[in-house]
Amino acid sequence: MANTDSINVRVLSLNCWGIRYLSKHCLQRYAMIGDMLCKEEHDIVLLQEVWSEKDYLSLKKKLACSHPHSHYFKSGVIGSGLAIFSKHRIHDTFLFRYSLNGYPYMAHHGDWFGGKAVGMAILNIGSLTANVYVTHLHAEYCRDKDSYLPHRVVQAWELQQFIRHTSAGADVVILGGDLNMHPQDLGNRLLRSYTGLRDSYLETAKFDGCEDGVTLIADNPFISKKELGPFEKGIRIDYILFKGSSKADLYCDFMSTTKGSVHDHPFPYSDHEALTAGLRLETLTPTGTGSDRQSKNQASDAGKLAELVDIVTEARTEVKVGLHCAERMRYTASRTGVMGLALLFLELAIAAVPWLALGAEQPFPRTSFYLLAALCFAILLTTSLLYIFYTMELKSLQSAEDQMRLAVGSLQEKLRGFPLAQPHNAQRRPPEGHDLSAFNPEE
Amino acid sequence: MANTDSINVRVLSLNCWGIRYLSKHCLQRYAMIGDMLCKEEHDIVLLQEVWSEKDYLSLKKKLACSHPHSHYFKSGVIGSGLAIFSKHRIHDTFLFRYSLNGYPYMAHHGDWFGGKAVGMAILNIGSLTANVYVTHLHAEYCRDKDSYLPHRVVQAWELQQFIRHTSAGADVVILGGDLNMHPQDLGNRLLRSYTGLRDSYLETAKFDGCEDGVTLIADNPFISKKELGPFEKGIRIDYILFKGSSKADLYCDFMSTTKGSVHDHPFPYSDHEALTAGLRLETLTPTGTGSDRQSKNQASDAGKLAELVDIVTEARTEVKVGLHCAERMRYTASRTGVMGLALLFLELAIAAVPWLALGAEQPFPRTSFYLLAALCFAILLTTSLLYIFYTMELKSLQSAEDQMRLAVGSLQEKLRGFPLAQPHNAQRRPPEGHDLSAFNPEE
Repeated sequence: MANTDSINVRVLSLNCWGIRYLSKHCLQRYAMIGDMLCKEEHDIVLLQEVWSEKDYLSLKKKLACSHPHSHYFKSGVIGSGLAIFSKHRIHDTFLFRYSLNGYPYMAHHGDWFGGKAVGMAILNIGSLTANVYVTHLHAEYCRDKDSYLPHRVVQAWELQQFIRHTSAGADVVILGGDLNMHPQDLGNRLLRSYTGLRDSYLETAKFDGCEDGVTLIADNPFISKKELGPFEKGIRIDYILFKGSSKADLYCDFMSTTKGSVHDHPFPYSDHEALTAGLRLETLTPTGTGSDRQSKNQASDAGKLAELVDIVTEARTEVKVGLHCAERMRYTASRTGVMGLALLFLELAIAAVPWLALGAEQPFPRTSFYLLAALCFAILLTTSLLYIFYTMELKSLQSAEDQMRLAVGSLQEKLRGFPLAQPHNAQRRPPEGHDLSAFNPEE
Repeated sequence: MANTDSINVRVLSLNCWGIRYLSKHCLQRYAMIGDMLCKEEHDIVLLQEVWSEKDYLSLKKKLACSHPHSHYFKSGVIGSGLAIFSKHRIHDTFLFRYSLNGYPYMAHHGDWFGGKAVGMAILNIGSLTANVYVTHLHAEYCRDKDSYLPHRVVQAWELQQFIRHTSAGADVVILGGDLNMHPQDLGNRLLRSYTGLRDSYLETAKFDGCEDGVTLIADNPFISKKELGPFEKGIRIDYILFKGSSKADLYCDFMSTTKGSVHDHPFPYSDHEALTAGLRLETLTPTGTGSDRQSKNQASDAGKLAELVDIVTEARTEVKVGLHCAERMRYTASRTGVMGLALLFLELAIAAVPWLALGAEQPFPRTSFYLLAALCFAILLTTSLLYIFYTMELKSLQSAEDQMRLAVGSLQEKLRGFPLAQPHNAQRRPPEGHDLSAFNPEE
């Protein structure tokens, strides 16, 4: 391959924490963010948690000169909170809503109402087609006992599916967002290994920012120590990932994060730090040596495939845990509903006896009768809604589990096509190892 | 290009009308369908309205020999009803749920509970990668006053987006399903022109089936004359669409539909007719003449683009009608809610007056008081739920409208790159005609 052209693209990702009236200093922070974006003139700006369309529109107005192209992704009750601003023309957009996103009755966590999704925008950068994705996965409220883990794993699964299936025609793929996952978390590994996306923090030539690239830091006045738990130094949960194609190589020349405070301002842009990645796109012209590259890729494939089988199997286990949990919850809901119904019948029976035996005195004071009946109806209504909700949750989990089983089967099929010994990659367990043979995709 | 290989693929699509206990002769019909599929051994079978997973599983068991690979797409409360059976190995599947699908309170229409979606399965047919899609769009209950039209147009929009964005890596694309649209309906034109999918009924060399390829026919005992309305001969709403790629040409050699009755059986397979398309895949090897083909395509692009702008504009108008309607409904819901609240306060005030003026007689009989309060609460609850629902509907419609505006802008941009005069295509209005100049994508 011969390089013919090189383009620099600066990408910013920021979770804006933009809950009007609830997030601290929301309007002032949006003004600061707008000023910064206007001044810095990144090529692509990926924002999350822009919950109010009004805030998006005011940003759009402010950035009309620096970023003439933009898109706001609408979904759910409140919206997806996702927005993209670009110097390059946006040709097409597409939105994929995750099938699972927390529970509506966990209103204080609020994720369910947000309609979490992944947004895609197709841009032309020079002669290249870039698929740019922005997303925000379900938050992790308690790492030790994370009841949302199956939901987040399914979201990561759907995210990798969406990126993989929609990026076949792309020369460049860029994903930015708040993944709410630590670098080595299951969902993150699933996403990176399946899509081949590379982490700009790990790939960058130069880095300027918080230690270990963390994006939730103790120095940020909007962050409480409690949120960070045992990770006193901070957590890295925001990412800019990228990959090239046969038509373009991608390199990360530099990366930076904000460090809590902003010069001349009393508070930072958000409770998350902003990430900036300087990517270099090198257009490739096929010169006949493309086959070398391909064969090299193929040689390392067996090891990668075996690793992928492990990761998908781990994800499947996690989804199964979620399935059992959802089944138990649905069972509890149905049992409570039946009890509510039984109580209602009992009440009606007790009330009916004296009514049938005319003249006998009504044993129920009228107020208690109505209150009890109202309680029964409330129980019935709530449990019915919960039953429907858990059924939907079950379907989504089962759907992901089915797809994962299929994926493992398909990966194993591919692996069987490889020679038994993999000379390079000796330290990694060979693909025909126990994890493959012990795992029956049909079970 | 030189043909090197030819593969025949037979595809069947059938809406099974499989509502357990409600659809007539459901179990017997499934048995008939299973027998037919087992005997006919189509390469790919695309089924819709397989509402019960049990029925899918019994079909799977029956077809284990003829169709070893299958997938059932789960979503929503009841499911998507979509299933695929295949002779060729299914490597990967993906499901996209439409953002709009009718109204939950239209329970007798039932579409909302089905979780309508489009399912994708990736198969390897010989050396070719085939993306096979199966879908079922929202039913049309009344053609003259079709309140679901904006929903169906948005579904068609999302369907074309999904196919377009996920099929870039496919050599062959096949879509089968019940689109619930007549051949020249807006959504159908949108789907076909945007994706370039070809209709096997229009393309087939040989046809054996109902006149005009209709799939809802008067002769079917499960169909009432009323359903067909003015279309006495029947309606064509089920389709098998296809397209090739630079790696494969696709031809439809024959097509057939069932004709209502089934030999040796008292009733047909379903209320819809089954479609079978015999497709021929010709693998192409690039021999350097590919550029001719491309330039020929490009020459006719301007006319197609102009047509596409018209269609998307028409779809946008339809979505705007839906937007106005949803806004009006949401306004009505909020006004009714406020009235319910006012009524509750009024009741409480009337009850409080004698309570404050101790000793005065309670003007409310206790039963009426509780009944009225319960009514107020019911109004408040219902209107709140409706308000949330209409907000979600609005977001989805706005999202589609935004994307359509972007698409029109992008198409116009492309059109500007074409020379003013289009020599061939004189009968069609030129791309710089009134429909483009009069239409401002930003409005």
